[in-house]
Amino acid sequence: MTYDPKTTRLLSFAEAAPKFRDGTDSPRAFLERCLEVIARRDNEVKAFVRMDAERARRAADESAARYKAGRPLSAVDGMPFGVKDMFDTADMDTEMGTPFHRGRRPMFDAAHVDALKRGGAVLVGKTVTSQFAVAGPGPTRNPFDPARSPGATSAGSAAAVGAAMIPVATGSHTRGSVIRPAGYCANFALKATFGALNRGGIMTATRSTDHLGIHAGALADLWATAWQIATVAGGDPGHPGLYGRPELAPARKPIRLVRIETRGWGLTDEASKAAFLALIEALRRDGIEIADRASDPAVADYEKTLHEVSPNWGAFATWESRWPMRLYRERDASLLHPAIAERVAAGEKMTLDEYRRALAFQAAIRRQHASFAGAADAFITLSAPGPAPFGDDVGDAVYNEPSSLLGAPALNLPLLAVSGMPLGVQLLGFDHRDWELAGIGRWLAECVLG
Amino acid sequence: MTYDPKTTRLLSFAEAAPKFRDGTDSPRAFLERCLEVIARRDNEVKAFVRMDAERARRAADESAARYKAGRPLSAVDGMPFGVKDMFDTADMDTEMGTPFHRGRRPMFDAAHVDALKRGGAVLVGKTVTSQFAVAGPGPTRNPFDPARSPGATSAGSAAAVGAAMIPVATGSHTRGSVIRPAGYCANFALKATFGALNRGGIMTATRSTDHLGIHAGALADLWATAWQIATVAGGDPGHPGLYGRPELAPARKPIRLVRIETRGWGLTDEASKAAFLALIEALRRDGIEIADRASDPAVADYEKTLHEVSPNWGAFATWESRWPMRLYRERDASLLHPAIAERVAAGEKMTLDEYRRALAFQAAIRRQHASFAGAADAFITLSAPGPAPFGDDVGDAVYNEPSSLLGAPALNLPLLAVSGMPLGVQLLGFDHRDWELAGIGRWLAECVLG
Repeated sequence: MTYDPKTTRLLSFAEAAPKFRDGTDSPRAFLERCLEVIARRDNEVKAFVRMDAERARRAADESAARYKAGRPLSAVDGMPFGVKDMFDTADMDTEMGTPFHRGRRPMFDAAHVDALKRGGAVLVGKTVTSQFAVAGPGPTRNPFDPARSPGATSAGSAAAVGAAMIPVATGSHTRGSVIRPAGYCANFALKATFGALNRGGIMTATRSTDHLGIHAGALADLWATAWQIATVAGGDPGHPGLYGRPELAPARKPIRLVRIETRGWGLTDEASKAAFLALIEALRRDGIEIADRASDPAVADYEKTLHEVSPNWGAFATWESRWPMRLYRERDASLLHPAIAERVAAGEKMTLDEYRRALAFQAAIRRQHASFAGAADAFITLSAPGPAPFGDDVGDAVYNEPSSLLGAPALNLPLLAVSGMPLGVQLLGFDHRDWELAGIGRWLAECVLG
Repeated sequence: MTYDPKTTRLLSFAEAAPKFRDGTDSPRAFLERCLEVIARRDNEVKAFVRMDAERARRAADESAARYKAGRPLSAVDGMPFGVKDMFDTADMDTEMGTPFHRGRRPMFDAAHVDALKRGGAVLVGKTVTSQFAVAGPGPTRNPFDPARSPGATSAGSAAAVGAAMIPVATGSHTRGSVIRPAGYCANFALKATFGALNRGGIMTATRSTDHLGIHAGALADLWATAWQIATVAGGDPGHPGLYGRPELAPARKPIRLVRIETRGWGLTDEASKAAFLALIEALRRDGIEIADRASDPAVADYEKTLHEVSPNWGAFATWESRWPMRLYRERDASLLHPAIAERVAAGEKMTLDEYRRALAFQAAIRRQHASFAGAADAFITLSAPGPAPFGDDVGDAVYNEPSSLLGAPALNLPLLAVSGMPLGVQLLGFDHRDWELAGIGRWLAECVLG
């Protein structure tokens, strides 16, 4: 299944929903089409760790009745969605990719799952995650080439959307776990501003850099999902939640984009570099100013700081493994992925002062990032150093660590292809301007994809 | 048991510990003395919801061996402590004061419990909490008068320390649940800077204003406990943790204190007002400058803002009840305290914009509070509008809400008595200056208590 950005189309719920009102389509029929794709493809893709088709059918029928009565609950009423198995669900086990939690049934849905269900969305199943969303990929394969990885750690969500099994799935991004797999699997995906989408009922090994993200086949569904979560569950406690409007922002042509290389450019293969540079040239020809390290000393300065992101992100992950990851290791080290055990061991040697240095770096890079807000619409870069790698190699999060530490919103756009595989383009915005970023993403998508 | 600040002495572990080294006392003997007091008094006081004396004895014996070998693990090695039953413990059920969690056994100790155990501290038992640390007092009585309340919601922790059953217990403070009961029960207590002590493994209904607090019979133990938590578990993810030094700060005489009345002064009984004003006069005579609304327009301005704290705190509690408290109500409304059910109902009608207004108020009051940092050592006020009330009335959090919203450190000092009952004095400091605040508290305690 070769990927062609101009012709490959994933599922769009928003496109179908108007027909639920005139009766030419229904949420149940939409769901059945999803279930057919799942039946046909998930043996190979292995995106789902568990499903409940009957429960989903009942929910879809209830939704159909609401549309018939002219009273859908929200823009996502009837929308089938998947949930990364890191997130609590009361009607399905939540195992976090680890034998420690085999058969664990949470008492309640995670806040965002609850918010989507209250809007009438239809939970189809739980999607594969790496162990604790940290390490150890599951069985999922890339929907565009089963020899390749879907990325990690939200592998199942990215692959389910990329295989057109479901229009939307939720994922989490601590280091690069939404944007990178979305790039490999041709999803639109938003890692919202830190704290903008409620993480209640989400366990995470590095909470201070963890973000709830949304994978979707279409930008309109992506935004409707984010908005439903924001208005019902809000953001994290103490955070102002997602800003914007209920509908996806209109396409907005950017005036000035900052092209950042980060440490990723040096790791990027030549074909991917060429594809990205061709896009940049096309944008320039279209009259968009592109600032970069060569043309703008402020960008050159920022690139220097961005090169220090990796060790500082590492300090967050290491320190925060002191609890509870250390306790998992002490309970049964044989069940813990070696990469997590190593992180725990490093965390035991770390001091609070070292963590504070990473926090100080984070505060400084956030200020530097924000200093571009008046002069640029967004930053643009790749989502990964190339298309999805082969085998169990889940790829490199190098392009994704900045947004994890910054907390700024990041958007993956499935604009490019290399070797018949998707290559994602990443837009990086400014805190709380997720809606505006989506508008720029929409313009780029319409411009490139037609 | 009449309270006299000058003669009543609660337990001090730090005072006893030197004798563990020369063998004239031991952690086991210290524990046995605690258990004797518990056996004698807890039938009436009802501070503990469950205990494990045998496990505590084993831990105390292990500690004794370490002291004998000259290798205690930390300043809290061998220290018996209690844990509010809101906080996870792997070897004791954690029921959060609610039938929803009857018999619930967490997988791991909460981060702070784990940190204290790693330092050799001896967990004695779980202490009574109101339902979800929100409403519905447990059976605990005030150790100085069983006809009176110990306050809430950390009732059991405050009463256990006040009855000299244990030297230290942990509590949580979302609105006033550490400082107020500590004031009623003659504890020293610190509600540390928001995020300074790791809340991992602590469930809370209003996470954005929730703080881990420490109840102690002596300031040295209070600080040693906080320090052990901070160095092993750190603060909350993304927070720099507790600042200061391992040892309690030396007593430091303040130069200028700001006396704030808040909305509480109008609710305070005459005897308590007189006791507090006498203390203020004594401090003035001692050469400490006392600024107040009459003498300083900036304080008068601040008092105006402080009068708006209650409804804004309420907005936090109401909005944050949307998850998961709403789900508890939907599971079985009959098990949920009516006050929580009411809050949930109010939360369902609330909008994200209303929550944002409360966040904006919080940001503004934090700036106003911080603006005093150069000109004052601390704020001083009462911990409650009078001594502990009778019956099931748990008292009014009016003096405590400011610190909950501010996140600034607050310290209760058992300096006053009214009608033979403790009346707490509250010091309110500046973010991350918990250690300095403790030094001022130490000076006041030494000055007043001798």
